[in-house]
Amino acid sequence: MEGESKRFLESVLAEVLAHLEPPKDGRIRHDLAPSSLRKTTDLELPIIGAGLDQVLEDIRTYLNGAVRTDQPGFMNPLWGGLTPEGLAGELVAAATNTSMYTYEIAPLASLIETAVLDRMRQHLRMPSGAGTLTTGGSAGNLMGVLCARQAALPASGHDGFDGRSWCMFVSKEAHYSVAMAANVVGLGRANLVKVDTDGQGRMDPAALDRAIQRETELGRRALCVVATSGTTVRGSFDPIQPIADVCEHHGVWLHVDAAWGGACLFSSTHRHLMDGVERADSVCWDAHKMMGLPLVCSAFIVQRVEVLRAACAHGNEAHYLFHDDAEDQDLGRLSLQCGRRNDALKLFLAWRSRGDAGWGALVDRYMELAAHLSERVRSEPTLELVGEPTWTNVCFRHVPEGVPHLGESIDRHNADLRVALLEEGRFMVSRADLDERVVLRSVIANPAVESSTLDDLVDAVLRLARTLPVHAKSQVEEPRA
Amino acid sequence: MEGESKRFLESVLAEVLAHLEPPKDGRIRHDLAPSSLRKTTDLELPIIGAGLDQVLEDIRTYLNGAVRTDQPGFMNPLWGGLTPEGLAGELVAAATNTSMYTYEIAPLASLIETAVLDRMRQHLRMPSGAGTLTTGGSAGNLMGVLCARQAALPASGHDGFDGRSWCMFVSKEAHYSVAMAANVVGLGRANLVKVDTDGQGRMDPAALDRAIQRETELGRRALCVVATSGTTVRGSFDPIQPIADVCEHHGVWLHVDAAWGGACLFSSTHRHLMDGVERADSVCWDAHKMMGLPLVCSAFIVQRVEVLRAACAHGNEAHYLFHDDAEDQDLGRLSLQCGRRNDALKLFLAWRSRGDAGWGALVDRYMELAAHLSERVRSEPTLELVGEPTWTNVCFRHVPEGVPHLGESIDRHNADLRVALLEEGRFMVSRADLDERVVLRSVIANPAVESSTLDDLVDAVLRLARTLPVHAKSQVEEPRA
Repeated sequence: MEGESKRFLESVLAEVLAHLEPPKDGRIRHDLAPSSLRKTTDLELPIIGAGLDQVLEDIRTYLNGAVRTDQPGFMNPLWGGLTPEGLAGELVAAATNTSMYTYEIAPLASLIETAVLDRMRQHLRMPSGAGTLTTGGSAGNLMGVLCARQAALPASGHDGFDGRSWCMFVSKEAHYSVAMAANVVGLGRANLVKVDTDGQGRMDPAALDRAIQRETELGRRALCVVATSGTTVRGSFDPIQPIADVCEHHGVWLHVDAAWGGACLFSSTHRHLMDGVERADSVCWDAHKMMGLPLVCSAFIVQRVEVLRAACAHGNEAHYLFHDDAEDQDLGRLSLQCGRRNDALKLFLAWRSRGDAGWGALVDRYMELAAHLSERVRSEPTLELVGEPTWTNVCFRHVPEGVPHLGESIDRHNADLRVALLEEGRFMVSRADLDERVVLRSVIANPAVESSTLDDLVDAVLRLARTLPVHAKSQVEEPRA
Repeated sequence: MEGESKRFLESVLAEVLAHLEPPKDGRIRHDLAPSSLRKTTDLELPIIGAGLDQVLEDIRTYLNGAVRTDQPGFMNPLWGGLTPEGLAGELVAAATNTSMYTYEIAPLASLIETAVLDRMRQHLRMPSGAGTLTTGGSAGNLMGVLCARQAALPASGHDGFDGRSWCMFVSKEAHYSVAMAANVVGLGRANLVKVDTDGQGRMDPAALDRAIQRETELGRRALCVVATSGTTVRGSFDPIQPIADVCEHHGVWLHVDAAWGGACLFSSTHRHLMDGVERADSVCWDAHKMMGLPLVCSAFIVQRVEVLRAACAHGNEAHYLFHDDAEDQDLGRLSLQCGRRNDALKLFLAWRSRGDAGWGALVDRYMELAAHLSERVRSEPTLELVGEPTWTNVCFRHVPEGVPHLGESIDRHNADLRVALLEEGRFMVSRADLDERVVLRSVIANPAVESSTLDDLVDAVLRLARTLPVHAKSQVEEPRA
């Protein structure tokens, strides 16, 4: 790389590092509608380019407008924060740009990906298996369903299949990607059976058993059960042992979506949440969520590697890529992608730096912080903790005191409260529906969060709630279903 | 970010920049079998972590073992080289780690992705449409097939469908991801009809028409046709105009896989290769191939956005993510991913720096270099150009002179020749089968390549070919089919 390019990249890193200082105005987000942002930002893609100086200017603009996902106030999705190992891993992966399909062009990267997957499998206590890094939990769930189909109907890859005669099972509180997967593989969303959950959002194994029986009597075959370890809103863990019993009894593939909850396995205190996962046929687990790596870093692991291999088969067409003499070392044979980034490196580097013990301490710390926030919420008379947290999702809402006719408008009030939080820009938490109530969901998955951050969040919620006009019943819209 | 982390990242960038100097020994690859590499590399994931100093050491090890995809000798896959805009874009995207699902957390990033997709659509001359960045051409082809199914059978997303009664069509020389997509969506690979190609590797529209008629008579419905703009081995462009006529006549969805060839649209000299693409229902186009961005940067574009939206639908489940008031600004509704990297930024930055004119000049330069290599191959009595290049894939093989009984062993000889090239480590080209011959495929998609690089490649091939033992007919294995 030439001198000009080097100086440019050094300037970019300097800009990035300066950007990563805490924001002077305390805001992690500026509330700009697309129409305003479009007016104030030059987004033109020119006929004649303006060179690297323009790029540096554009990078400054981008950094100024970016939501500060690295800052403690960012508790919105199931990930957040920025670690030096993660950023370094991405920089090195980009600079050595390769594709994970063949050992030939990704030698050490292939060994690193395999090492990381093997170690994750050890933590799952699966006696055998292999896997691949995918493009996220949604892809991991799709792979799980696809492997289930491959195992149940080995000829389907060649002959096709009638998706209308199959069904699959998931809890009512599972992630929407399972519904997308049902569509993609040809079952359709109507053949995805939503199983009832208990009061803590966990799939009811007896209800699952009845549902499988009912569908079987109706003439539909059960393709798979997707259990969730860490649901999106509530952070619930479906009980894997009894679900695995049901699956075993009916001979149905068990896929565990541990995209969010998988990291509990590092904590001796909390790993019981996934007891029985070693009985799953397949699991997905995102290292870009609680483990804090930059997006995307997501593992899909399967007990029977031959099923994954068959699910990714494509006849004998890729003579230009895979040669018979490299069968066992080319990771591309276990993937639905052809070109594929090296997402393993950042995870490897972070693991070398922190070790199992570091991951375990991180999980325990997040759980303590979540308990602290729950306690703070409980102690405030106008805040209501919705659901009892078992993971680091803390869902709550503000219930003003002494205001008549407010009942149905509390949902609207909390939706407004979230908008006010966003507009102020110091905190981001998400809005969700839980137990038929609109709640604020704050998630502890950001290493920058401290207990004082959570105290400040509660204070901000209470302060902003007081500034909101009270909606009389007649003025409000129907609460969202 | 704290002082120690900053110093660490500065050290990482310094290591990366030092690494990007041309290798002192001229080798872009060291030939190490997995077993050797495993022995000499510490891949242990420890219980107790070793901190950032260890990470810096690991990064040095990784850099030393990485294939030099940035160097001119790397002509193996359909991508190569490293540009400062691309690397800067990845660094900034990682440092501002966000997910593309909602405008709320990815405001400017959402506008940038939309701007890039709109501009690519303009180059496709599609009168209307929208798109999404996907995880690569394989995902783009899957999306194309899925949208075709959604359009042909709008109820399939809800009810499922019988994949065995459908079929789809692709040329014999298309990428293997189309076969994977046929499996994933439930048709099965047997229902993927391979249409004959002409002498230059282009799908024969009359053969396509006959194939659709034949399948229809057999009672199978045609789901889609996948035309290829830039086949993997030969770089052929299927003739889109007459194929679109056939699709229109039969009422079949036309998806164009322009993962490799899409960049021709920037060149006034070469854009005719994709004449008629404005009639396609969907197109995928990788900016990480000829446009030189780091993996992955891949666009999927569709004329009817409502089809894409329906294909990615999931009922009303993601209340925790998408709110009705943000319907038109949240890109997550057009994707099969939930968490998704910002892959648009690097493309935006490169486009701002180079402009359409820069991309066009790049394409023209690559075409000139490919012509130069073809000419060199033609001028050497012992080299045979296999196929007439229309794009920057140059396929050739070595045919030793005056050696008796060599006929069938030329394939083996060229496979050995490639192994010798790899072992020497100065050049990487791929091995493929073309017109029933094993060929060396060298691809011009790397900005570091110059005409002297190609002269050196030819010299190396001739020199190494002379060192290979001649296989008598009786000694050789059967050539690969």
